[in-house]
Amino acid sequence: MNLKRGAFCVVSHRGRYSVRRAAALDVLREELCDADRLILDAAVSRRHPAVAEAVPPQRTLHVTADENLKSLEGVERLLAWLLGGGLDRGGTLYVVGGGTVQDAASFAAAILHRGCQWVFIPTTLLAQGDSCIGSKSSINYAGYKNQLGAFYPPREIIIDAGFLQTLHADEVRSGLGELLHYMLLAGPKDLHDFAARIGDDWQQLTPTQLSSLAFRALEVKRPYVEADEFDSAARRHLNLGHTFGHALEYASQGAMPHGVAVAYGVDMAAAYSAESGLLRQGRRHEVGAVARKLVNGTELKSLLVADVIRGLGRDKKRVNNEVEFILLEDIGRPLRQRVPLDEKLSSFMDRYLSEWRDAPA
Amino acid sequence: MNLKRGAFCVVSHRGRYSVRRAAALDVLREELCDADRLILDAAVSRRHPAVAEAVPPQRTLHVTADENLKSLEGVERLLAWLLGGGLDRGGTLYVVGGGTVQDAASFAAAILHRGCQWVFIPTTLLAQGDSCIGSKSSINYAGYKNQLGAFYPPREIIIDAGFLQTLHADEVRSGLGELLHYMLLAGPKDLHDFAARIGDDWQQLTPTQLSSLAFRALEVKRPYVEADEFDSAARRHLNLGHTFGHALEYASQGAMPHGVAVAYGVDMAAAYSAESGLLRQGRRHEVGAVARKLVNGTELKSLLVADVIRGLGRDKKRVNNEVEFILLEDIGRPLRQRVPLDEKLSSFMDRYLSEWRDAPA
Repeated sequence: MNLKRGAFCVVSHRGRYSVRRAAALDVLREELCDADRLILDAAVSRRHPAVAEAVPPQRTLHVTADENLKSLEGVERLLAWLLGGGLDRGGTLYVVGGGTVQDAASFAAAILHRGCQWVFIPTTLLAQGDSCIGSKSSINYAGYKNQLGAFYPPREIIIDAGFLQTLHADEVRSGLGELLHYMLLAGPKDLHDFAARIGDDWQQLTPTQLSSLAFRALEVKRPYVEADEFDSAARRHLNLGHTFGHALEYASQGAMPHGVAVAYGVDMAAAYSAESGLLRQGRRHEVGAVARKLVNGTELKSLLVADVIRGLGRDKKRVNNEVEFILLEDIGRPLRQRVPLDEKLSSFMDRYLSEWRDAPA
Repeated sequence: MNLKRGAFCVVSHRGRYSVRRAAALDVLREELCDADRLILDAAVSRRHPAVAEAVPPQRTLHVTADENLKSLEGVERLLAWLLGGGLDRGGTLYVVGGGTVQDAASFAAAILHRGCQWVFIPTTLLAQGDSCIGSKSSINYAGYKNQLGAFYPPREIIIDAGFLQTLHADEVRSGLGELLHYMLLAGPKDLHDFAARIGDDWQQLTPTQLSSLAFRALEVKRPYVEADEFDSAARRHLNLGHTFGHALEYASQGAMPHGVAVAYGVDMAAAYSAESGLLRQGRRHEVGAVARKLVNGTELKSLLVADVIRGLGRDKKRVNNEVEFILLEDIGRPLRQRVPLDEKLSSFMDRYLSEWRDAPA
């Protein structure tokens, strides 16, 4: 793994944008000028008071990162503040927060004047190692997740490992689950290096180590989003673990953290691939062993198979009664496959959940 | 002018899309299937009842083309209908109407699932000869026009000259004003051909003649939007006549039709260019003579200079106290220039409006 490079560029339909390591405080203090505005996650502001102090309060909007923000009404509040505060064509919107704040604020940036300049400073492991590149924004609508959105990249992304210092354990574990699927896409060497770094206890990882893993995940993600920014073919491989994962999140009524669901989803994709004769059993167990460094089945105990299947039926990429799964021919060799929502799938799901229930915790 | 070609393609960030002449009724009857939906301008439906009859009512939403539609609330009504009616990833949204319906419906298409398939059938001269290509959508927000929007092209555009048969005279005149600015960008030959076709009375033009002029305007527009889809440089030349025009629309409190404002705006750009020593007086009068085939000053009588200047100050591309005008070095040679909103500009505006007031109607 090349973890030394401190910056790289991503090519998008709006031009190149850069990802670089820098101290967020320096950027905010030195770059943010009169015409600019800051949208700041209130939780980040509490954990890092110096961030809010770096910018005059009249240029800052504190937001709560919840599902209310990720809605048309939430985006409208951001727009009202930006337009009311006079962000004109010369100004840049800075956004400091995790994926939820990114989703709402970047959607506002995408539709304001058909796209205003924005800079993103991600503060969670999930955002630093996944969502910050790739141009996607999404908001919920009418009870369905991520129904609306846009493809609109920031001008620049600033990575500051310092924010990882104050993450809660669940946020770290969720981030690692998301990183896992990139390592699995990258190949056996990345997956084994990832497992070795995690070791016996992911809670021992330092912010610097976490940041290195996140940076590697972005390197894995970059060629996919450059080749297929609008998610119509190659990029869909990044959904590995996510179709199952989203269904688990739905079945848990949102209680399961996203990256934890992805860790299970990756394991399910490996199990389903092995059952379908695509993936060798040895490889399936290698994947399972890494996933088990992050999850132990606790979150699955209370889930009902029928709810998980219902969750799959709500997949926003569903066409007719089929959903697309990313299966595995090998570690590092994902395969897109359409799968009908039928008895066979329910039966697999039933067996998968039962195995976790019967396993020792 | 090459008016014979019946189809061409436009290259966009989402791939190529086609513009072709076809009978709208055939397209709707033969192509629109169960999974598809139709958003239909209610006024078009009244003038052309066969259009509504071509599609089952449960797949059709009639909309009123007004400023309520061009708002976040209006777009939300469209989204609620599309999602409530189950438009899934396999479905295509057909949109039949003019620029207002296009603006709202294409914005909904742009943000639904981060972009759903849509087909546009423009029904006005303005939409057939201008807005249908170029990817832009826009809605109003908080009393300001076109503050929000996206760049998102349809999969296909169907041009049916039959819709031009039922346009009101004002709609035709407004469309011709918009076409005028393309002819002026294209060069002396296109401008003179345009003037010759209009002759002494634009009301004598047949739908076929209007459609040919509109098709030529799209040919002129295409290379600009292909070279600079996101409107950051070359495409801005298409604003010729529009910065002045938008200010006139504002000063008239929306009473002046858009294309009529553009016809005046083009004339003002020529006058300002001549005053600034950029454009020869002979050329300025050539432009003025063509504009005068469409406008006679009636709409300017009640306007106040202060309101027009205020309108310029609301230009959404304003940076600090300057706006960008497209001036003319010659017919067919536009030039982007930043102009401060100062006394000199007010004085020009005052003289320009006075000249029309003093002229015989």
